[in-house]
Formats: sequence, C-alpha cells, structure tokens
Amino acid sequence: MLPTIAREADAVVMIDQRRLPADEIYVRCRTAAEVARAIRTMVIRGAPAIGVAAAMGIALGMRRSSATGTQKFAAEFYKTCELLAATRPTAVNLFWAIERMKRAFGTGAEAGESVDQIKDRLDREAAAIHDEDVASCRALGAHGASVVPAGARILTHCNAGALATAGYGTALGVIRGAVEAGKRVTVLAGETRPVLQGARLTAWELVRDHIPTTVITDGMAGAIMRMGQIDLVVVGADRIAANGDTANKIGTYTVAVLAREHRIPFYVAAPLSTIDLRTPDGQHIPIEERSAKEVTHLGGRQLTPAGAGIRNPAFDVTPHRLIAGIITERGIFRPPYAETLEAAMAEARRLRG
Amino acid sequence: MLPTIAREADAVVMIDQRRLPADEIYVRCRTAAEVARAIRTMVIRGAPAIGVAAAMGIALGMRRSSATGTQKFAAEFYKTCELLAATRPTAVNLFWAIERMKRAFGTGAEAGESVDQIKDRLDREAAAIHDEDVASCRALGAHGASVVPAGARILTHCNAGALATAGYGTALGVIRGAVEAGKRVTVLAGETRPVLQGARLTAWELVRDHIPTTVITDGMAGAIMRMGQIDLVVVGADRIAANGDTANKIGTYTVAVLAREHRIPFYVAAPLSTIDLRTPDGQHIPIEERSAKEVTHLGGRQLTPAGAGIRNPAFDVTPHRLIAGIITERGIFRPPYAETLEAAMAEARRLRG
Repeated sequence: MLPTIAREADAVVMIDQRRLPADEIYVRCRTAAEVARAIRTMVIRGAPAIGVAAAMGIALGMRRSSATGTQKFAAEFYKTCELLAATRPTAVNLFWAIERMKRAFGTGAEAGESVDQIKDRLDREAAAIHDEDVASCRALGAHGASVVPAGARILTHCNAGALATAGYGTALGVIRGAVEAGKRVTVLAGETRPVLQGARLTAWELVRDHIPTTVITDGMAGAIMRMGQIDLVVVGADRIAANGDTANKIGTYTVAVLAREHRIPFYVAAPLSTIDLRTPDGQHIPIEERSAKEVTHLGGRQLTPAGAGIRNPAFDVTPHRLIAGIITERGIFRPPYAETLEAAMAEARRLRG
Repeated sequence: MLPTIAREADAVVMIDQRRLPADEIYVRCRTAAEVARAIRTMVIRGAPAIGVAAAMGIALGMRRSSATGTQKFAAEFYKTCELLAATRPTAVNLFWAIERMKRAFGTGAEAGESVDQIKDRLDREAAAIHDEDVASCRALGAHGASVVPAGARILTHCNAGALATAGYGTALGVIRGAVEAGKRVTVLAGETRPVLQGARLTAWELVRDHIPTTVITDGMAGAIMRMGQIDLVVVGADRIAANGDTANKIGTYTVAVLAREHRIPFYVAAPLSTIDLRTPDGQHIPIEERSAKEVTHLGGRQLTPAGAGIRNPAFDVTPHRLIAGIITERGIFRPPYAETLEAAMAEARRLRG
C-alpha cells in the first residue's frame, strides 16, 4: 500500500506528490498551518486525500494547542477549521471532513469532555476518516470490477489512485479491483496537463503494481478511441452534485464527450463523501482557477512567450447525461441520478444511525 | 513577415523552431543532408514549410554537385530527392514539392540543358515554390476572413502559422486575413502536447503581431467550449484526402469532435498543395510515430516513471463529416468534398495549362 499520508504523534507526514516520480520525498507538517500549505501547494492532492489531510491537520493543530479552558480551545478549533477550509474550493471531501471534525468536537463539548478528552476524540475521528476512506476505496473497487470486461483497455485521466486517497484509489481502485478479480487489463493514462498527475502519479502507482500502463498526451484520447483501442473510461471526482453532474480534473469533460462519440462507457468512481446533495447541479460547483505558472512553466523552463494570456481552471464539470454509472462503496448508481443518489445518501444516513 | 526559411547562395537558413520562444537562433544548412536532418528533427515543421525546405534542400544539394555530365548529375538528383522524401511521411506537401522539382529537372533535361542551366532551373523552381506558398497563404487568408465573425473567439491547434509555411500561415493566415479585414478577434491557442507548437510558436507569432492570444492546455478545449467562449475553430492540415478526411497534428480530431458537440464551425485551412487526390480517404494516410522522448521528457526533465509505455502518433485524422469547410487559395470548399475538391484540383491544373 502506498504511504500517501500518515499521522505521527507530532506531525502529519505526506509523500511530496509534486516531486514524483523523480524523487520520493516525505514532507513532515508539524502544524495545522503547514498542513494547509501542503494542501494549497499540492504536496497532497486528490479529493479524498485532502479530506483526510484536513482532518489530520485539525487534529494535529488541536493536539498542539496550549489552551486549558474549553472556550479558548473551541475558538482555536473553529479558527483551525477555517484555515483548512480556505485551502482549495472544489473538492467537497475537504468540507465534508471538516464537518465531521466539527460534529466530533460538538459531541465531545456537549458531553462536557475535558480539553484532553476532546483532543483524543479529534485524533480518533481523523484516524476513522482515514481508515474509512481506504475501506470505501476497496469496497468501490470490488463493485467497480463488475463493469470491467476481461482484457479491457481502460482510459483514466488525472490520478484517482492511492495517492489521491488514503490508499487503494477510486478510479484506480476499480482497476485494482478488476485485477484482484483475476481480470487482465491494460491502462491508458492521460498525462493530464498542466500538472501531469496522469504521467507522473498514475503511471508511477500502476507500474509499481505491475499493471501494464501506457501514458498518452491528453490530445491523443480521441484518435486512440477512433482506432477502437479503448473499451472503458473510469475517472475520479472532486464533487458530484445532486443531479450527478461531476467536477473532476480539467480535461475530464473532453474525455467524456469523446467517450460518448465512440460509444465507450464512461464511469465515475468516488466514495459517498464526494457526493454533495447541497449542490443541485454542476453550475453551482465552484471551480478553482490556479496559477498561470502551472501552464507556462515546467521544471523551471518557460514554455510560453511573454505577452500571451493563460487560462488555468483546475477542474471542469461533466454533465450527468454523459456518465454511465457512479461507482461507490455502496454499489454502482445509474441514472436518474437525482433519485438514485438521494436514495443512496438517505440509506447511508440511516445506517450510520 | 517572419523569417521561417530563406535561401542563401551556399545555404538554406531556418529559424530553429525547437528553441522558440526562448531563443531566436538561425540554423544554416549547407548540404541537402543537413536540410533533411533539419526536417526530421523539426528544426522546421509544418506541412507547407517542409515542402519549401525540401525544394530548397534539393536545389542547394544540386548547386553543390561537382558532376559535369548530365547522367551523373541526374543520378545525384534522384538520390537527393529520395533523401528528402525519407524525412517525414505524413505531410503530402513534402512529396508534392519533390514532384515539382522532378518535373523541373525533367523539363530541363528534355530540353537538353547543361548541368549549370539545370542548377539554375532548380533554384528558380524552389524559389517559386516558396513565393507561391506565401501568395497562397495570403489568398486563403482573404477567403477565410469571410467565415470569421466580428469579435470572434477562435480556437486553433498546433501552429499553422508563418512558421509552418513560407510566411503568413494557413490557419493563422485566416486569422491575419480577418484582422486585415478590420475584424477584432481573439485567439485561443491549444498548447499542443507533446511538442507544444501552440504554446511556443502560435502564441509567439500572434503576440508579435499584437493579436490577443491566450494559451490553454489541450484538455481545456471542451470546458471552454461548454462555457460558450469559442465561436470558431480553424486548424491547418498535413494532408487532405480526396474525400476531405484531413490529417493534422495529434489532438485535432479531439477538437473537431468537441466542436461538433457544441455546434461550433470547424474549418481546415490549407493550400491546394496539401490536397492529395491519390489518397482516397483518411485510412490511407500514413501516420508518423515519433520518439517516445517527446512525451516523456521536457527540457531535459523526465516526466514519466521508468516502466510505463508511451504512445506518440504525431498526427490524427479528422473525418470529413466534422469539417464545415476547407479554406484554400482558390476559395472555400464545402461538402461533398469528394466532388468539390476534385473539381478544384482539375480547375487548378487547367489554369496552370
């Protein structure tokens, strides 16, 4: 299992995803502010992973608090939550994880727990978020394996792998699930400009797992589909709206349109924590615009001339009509998503009690 | 006018397109073999430009020949033609230009000209190919301006500009034609991985011409179309088959599918020398597979992990049904291309006499 993120007594440790695959370097964040910076600068990325990072960052920050009174401790807690919430706007798992930490805090505070008891409670909650994410990925991988034909040539975009989660992955979880079910598959990884998560991270993970993987530039997807060499597309998600519209890494929508044109099934794989019923549709998902430098520079080299404008939306929205199914830890949901997703979330709430 | 390629008495001089936009360096090729290497390694690229380069390379090579007898000179000539023909397989302008040089040679030889007279004839023919290409680009730009709405936001892919031709450009010729006709336009340049001709060359040319240009990664095209921010797509071509199927830089087909999905007109701009009636359709266009290193490395930095496979087809084919019109120096041709292109080529042959 890849060591995406781990908690130590006095730190949150992450593999620096900006440096992969050239260097395997671990970053030790010793404060909540350092965790927030790591999320913002994409030391760690991927919607489920940044949810876990935020939870661990909050738990770490509060563990280090010197507050003795509950009131001061609470003020620090809510400030820390705000700090983490302000890192990246699109992935809903971030806000979902912070909400869970707030509920844990509230439960402890209402029960009259001491500051130390609440610190323990926050640590336990962050650890639970981590462990549940791994379990969710494994469960969705097992469900998703059923839609993977034997011998499938699978296109994925960006990295929705172990590195994007607490472990195992969502889209790559489906691929791993298929392999564990004894299916032989080959993977095409779209390189995913500008940050190259496909070329750098997806290829690195899958090569480590001995799953045959070929990197293509993003523009090649159409031509390779037209040659009949792609059987299935599986991608992750940063936020799934109530109607099934899905925000994911920029370029995903282009792949979805191409898949429809070539009658190739296009699946989204994500844990329920990525589904946001409070966002009615894709138009309401905030899309982060990141620094132009991600597009203009690579490895210190400037690619574009001075004077050219740059666009850098980090995500796009794939409308639900292009999505064959949404693969979750509680099964595969099919259209009409407005109904199936709401029912799934109600059932999950009921089971949590 | 950009100095893409020029002939000097003892050299063919080209701007090194691999080094733009960072460095403006000129490469002096003193032999036909050096010109061939420059084409193969993409010092110069773009279908019309490599046609001009091949013609100049042949004329240069024969100018330097020490053969005194016509027979030895002829043997050298055909060997030089083979050398240039073996550089790149997809762009038909290369073979068209070599054919023209062969016809010029044949005319001189049949007329009983001396070796020196044939050398002069080859120089004149190469110069004519150069000058006619500039004139064709200007003419097609004037025709193409008619399909550009005032205020249009135009997406182009790769570089079909002055750098891809003897000057002025094909797709960028249409944009320049629209600007000369008094239309305000803005350009979106797809960066065009792996070699980044859009980010590096198209943006550089257009910024120099003060035409507002924004670079996007290839994966962004779909999202920006869906936002309603692209009115028109114009691209160049490396070979247009008899039925209108068009080979162009990898990623073009992806853009064409996206344009159809969003009801955005998709035009191809190319001189008649790019139309190849001997190739019946896109399936018969040979597609060059280039070195994996173009995908795996950038500026000396390795992007992908060892062990990952790589695909690198340099071109793809856009089927004629996705093309709203083919803009040439003799007007804009519309479907059914099998008829309109054949008639256009017959008319051009008639005019040449």
